[in-house]
Amino acid sequence: MLDESTQGVFTIAATPFLPDGALDFDSIDRMVDAYIEKGANGLTILGMMGEAGKLSAAESVSVVQRVTSRCTVPVVVGVSAPGFAAMTALSNEAMDAGAAGVMVAPPMGLQTDAQIVSYFHNTADALGDIPFVLQDFPLATGVQISPSVILKIAEDCPTCVMLKHEDWPGLEKITTLRNASDTGSRRISILCGNGGMYLVEELLRGADGAMTGFGYPEMMRQVLGTYKTGDLDRARDIFDAYLPMIRYEAQPGLGLAIRKHSLVRQGIIQHSTLRKPGPALTPATIAEIDALAARQNRRLSDLGL
Amino acid sequence: MLDESTQGVFTIAATPFLPDGALDFDSIDRMVDAYIEKGANGLTILGMMGEAGKLSAAESVSVVQRVTSRCTVPVVVGVSAPGFAAMTALSNEAMDAGAAGVMVAPPMGLQTDAQIVSYFHNTADALGDIPFVLQDFPLATGVQISPSVILKIAEDCPTCVMLKHEDWPGLEKITTLRNASDTGSRRISILCGNGGMYLVEELLRGADGAMTGFGYPEMMRQVLGTYKTGDLDRARDIFDAYLPMIRYEAQPGLGLAIRKHSLVRQGIIQHSTLRKPGPALTPATIAEIDALAARQNRRLSDLGL
Amino acid sequence: MLDESTQGVFTIAATPFLPDGALDFDSIDRMVDAYIEKGANGLTILGMMGEAGKLSAAESVSVVQRVTSRCTVPVVVGVSAPGFAAMTALSNEAMDAGAAGVMVAPPMGLQTDAQIVSYFHNTADALGDIPFVLQDFPLATGVQISPSVILKIAEDCPTCVMLKHEDWPGLEKITTLRNASDTGSRRISILCGNGGMYLVEELLRGADGAMTGFGYPEMMRQVLGTYKTGDLDRARDIFDAYLPMIRYEAQPGLGLAIRKHSLVRQGIIQHSTLRKPGPALTPATIAEIDALAARQNRRLSDLGL
Amino acid sequence: MLDESTQGVFTIAATPFLPDGALDFDSIDRMVDAYIEKGANGLTILGMMGEAGKLSAAESVSVVQRVTSRCTVPVVVGVSAPGFAAMTALSNEAMDAGAAGVMVAPPMGLQTDAQIVSYFHNTADALGDIPFVLQDFPLATGVQISPSVILKIAEDCPTCVMLKHEDWPGLEKITTLRNASDTGSRRISILCGNGGMYLVEELLRGADGAMTGFGYPEMMRQVLGTYKTGDLDRARDIFDAYLPMIRYEAQPGLGLAIRKHSLVRQGIIQHSTLRKPGPALTPATIAEIDALAARQNRRLSDLGL
Repeated sequence: MLDESTQGVFTIAATPFLPDGALDFDSIDRMVDAYIEKGANGLTILGMMGEAGKLSAAESVSVVQRVTSRCTVPVVVGVSAPGFAAMTALSNEAMDAGAAGVMVAPPMGLQTDAQIVSYFHNTADALGDIPFVLQDFPLATGVQISPSVILKIAEDCPTCVMLKHEDWPGLEKITTLRNASDTGSRRISILCGNGGMYLVEELLRGADGAMTGFGYPEMMRQVLGTYKTGDLDRARDIFDAYLPMIRYEAQPGLGLAIRKHSLVRQGIIQHSTLRKPGPALTPATIAEIDALAARQNRRLSDLGL
Repeated sequence: MLDESTQGVFTIAATPFLPDGALDFDSIDRMVDAYIEKGANGLTILGMMGEAGKLSAAESVSVVQRVTSRCTVPVVVGVSAPGFAAMTALSNEAMDAGAAGVMVAPPMGLQTDAQIVSYFHNTADALGDIPFVLQDFPLATGVQISPSVILKIAEDCPTCVMLKHEDWPGLEKITTLRNASDTGSRRISILCGNGGMYLVEELLRGADGAMTGFGYPEMMRQVLGTYKTGDLDRARDIFDAYLPMIRYEAQPGLGLAIRKHSLVRQGIIQHSTLRKPGPALTPATIAEIDALAARQNRRLSDLGL
Repeated sequence: MLDESTQGVFTIAATPFLPDGALDFDSIDRMVDAYIEKGANGLTILGMMGEAGKLSAAESVSVVQRVTSRCTVPVVVGVSAPGFAAMTALSNEAMDAGAAGVMVAPPMGLQTDAQIVSYFHNTADALGDIPFVLQDFPLATGVQISPSVILKIAEDCPTCVMLKHEDWPGLEKITTLRNASDTGSRRISILCGNGGMYLVEELLRGADGAMTGFGYPEMMRQVLGTYKTGDLDRARDIFDAYLPMIRYEAQPGLGLAIRKHSLVRQGIIQHSTLRKPGPALTPATIAEIDALAARQNRRLSDLGL
Repeated sequence: MLDESTQGVFTIAATPFLPDGALDFDSIDRMVDAYIEKGANGLTILGMMGEAGKLSAAESVSVVQRVTSRCTVPVVVGVSAPGFAAMTALSNEAMDAGAAGVMVAPPMGLQTDAQIVSYFHNTADALGDIPFVLQDFPLATGVQISPSVILKIAEDCPTCVMLKHEDWPGLEKITTLRNASDTGSRRISILCGNGGMYLVEELLRGADGAMTGFGYPEMMRQVLGTYKTGDLDRARDIFDAYLPMIRYEAQPGLGLAIRKHSLVRQGIIQHSTLRKPGPALTPATIAEIDALAARQNRRLSDLGL
């Protein structure tokens, strides 16, 4: 079970589809194996990048069951939903299938501190004893969560064990939260998203690891592992080798298509299909990705990777 | 089946709950009967005011089946969902259960004309031959739909048979759409929402009726029926008698709780329970509703109603 | 000078233009006289409905000077601006010209409680000893201000002497603020906007009056005056007589054009011109306004007004 | 005068302040000289990053006059304003002072294609024969502008001579616009912003240069100059050397403070002061910037720069 001391790399998994849009279960198996092989300490499925919103309730359950039955590391399941009935239904299915916890982003439209706190109080009530990750991703949700609100939720809700941090800018937020837990506030785990764009700085500020799905998922393991050896300069060198691609993948609305393209190129999934509505990559974009991948390979090779 | 010539009053149905939050099927039956008795030509269920987002997928299906099995007038089912898989799953269940059509609001975040048109193209593709209502409710969705976009969707998608109009201000939009259909654009049905706040003017501009759920649902029938007799001044008199309450119910986020309170007061449903997150009415609010209801009764009585 | 005990009717003044868009100073004079004659205890100029954003800095100053030189009741000047330099410049000009205080709405984009509090701390610092009104109008600004935030601002900033209340729904907010001031929080004045749509209920909840610009400005005086005599039923009768027009004027983006049309019809200003971007009324809209005005006259006449 | 054939690097200038918040005219002079020396083909002042919204009208004019009197390359002046009166007033002052053109971003709140087109029609009318840049920056304005809308504005408004492109993702938009101008649409200049984050790809898609204010402004000149020599790989090498800092500066709301810190470190301006509301850099942030700068120096040195 997920808890406050969780750390490392939780890879955000894509949801693979066949060209006709049906779920691609073979690719799910292959992808789970590949993520673990490339250093994942856990997987997160049915997040925003997992096209969770595009699955029917029955499909969501079948993805959860397929992943958990294959996966040898903890699995976190995104269960964000417009209402608590759907959230609870999926959460219970997920835990029954062996998930380690669930992840909840606040719904669009929440604004005041009190509204956000109240939403997560209700979430914790609805989830009972299921441990959950608070996803803080204002660029996608439009909801700005103050550090004091996160601390209050952590204080009030013992089952809130982790922050998925992807506020932008968000480095000071990590520092504020860590300073607070150093002086008595409840300390929860912080894993960082945003495609890894600020990974080194996030670690320097006190994050416990990464929860993101960059298309070359070994990056998170390599950077984190090197960082932990104390060789900060080499951790930055590795990060910088991936950065042009991280930046390219960071394009909102386009990032998942780019990521799936990269996963196909590496043989991790079979098809780069996205469900509608979703962009198709143009030849110009594909050429750009491939050029960046070639340069990335050269730089990693120069680093002995 | 719903089509372009549909007119009259489609009452937006609440979803009744027991005090513990479970679905209240007995009240569903009673409510369906009451709406029809008070003049509904059709019902619309699982809309925003039906707390659709707070039901699990299985609950939504059970509400649809209960209503359609009881109801003797056409039923429209709200199927708005973050993705097309969930939308299609519910739509198919609804049509199998005997619904006359479905209703789709655009998801938050759509902005450009092209994005909106594309979304409804995809919707029409996903729904196949199921007739659908385009719900245009910017105050709730944040999506502004130009008249030219509505006309294009109507032109491109033969299964788009109705506009649920609740833009605000929206009177000129009705005029623009009706002028366009008078000069060759495809004419679809326009039923108006917004709690009835501009009902008389909407009829004057060319609307075909109302689709809203004001807590005294006979209002829509009385105003529309009187309007059709040509006695505009009496139609306005009746409307004005209800207006203080219409206005009170128009309070966003609070309106549904007010409406359920009124339905309970009239014996139409058993409990005013809302699912979380939802406001509870304070004593001050209840006193205001009751004072307005008493005055409304007096004014209706003066009008011989 | 405006202070915490201010009450009554502060009429929001339009800014009259000549047909070519230039300021119409003759109409300013006439309008100031008319507002006072119709019962204004104060005027508020350069608010959102005063097209403040469409004036150059020099024009704003000239409007302030013209109004204050003519006006025999206190004048509040809207000074909302993207930055504090422009806000301070206009505020100083306003106070030099004899204004009683200024009004500040938070800029679009503020989200968390801390951001809002900080913004008004900065505002109070920038304004020095000038008394200011906090304008709480989420429908226009997108900024949701919790009661606890308003109380904190009132507590921290002695120069914040009034809330212009136009949250929607907002009745519980008034009750919460009044309960807080009854139990020790600093009590500031609350005048209500929103075109008067909930005026009677706002008074019942503890508001000190109205600050709005409904096109028949005697309404606020009549309702407030009758309310204070204790004849609540007659206050409601008067309110209800105006309500169809209040509702019609409440159409966002269109309301000011409707209001200016009404002011012209009553001879209060010469031209209904709005500066761009601003809607022009269609013949259908004008016919609707005129029909509502005729009915309003009849109902007021029935009431002996 | 700015026209459709303008290309190269237009550096977005900061507005330097003294520690007490007053304008720092000495730093303006030094900064203008430095930008030109580092390869600017033009300057853009009073943009969002120039804290334009925080200046009074009088201060804006004084900044324009100081820059234009010193500057030997064309100057574009940001004149975005809530209304056309303020926009026109500043534009006229700017052109009188010798500016080459002005830049206009759409105001928050515009949504439909028709609203955006209408806004720029009004803008062109208000500006008369002054050439203007359309700033397309949805992350800051919330306004999404479709390629077809840009093409229509370019077609309808001869004085719209340039697009400041900073949509994100925006590469396909450049391709769409260039394909359109290759097949008959009016071709206007496209200079790209976003801190240079996608500069190489933007050039590959057909952009004419950069209009951004990255804290090491020689970057834009070096990348563009090298790109034009045809040595794409070296252009990418140079870009990649700056990318960790470009990324760091891309943090919204924090970027300008980072940039001003970098400008101070290089002796280009005297103080890193921002006007309120604006963030102060923490020691942790400053340490991160300095670490990135040191690594950037080493990588540039490896490239012989």
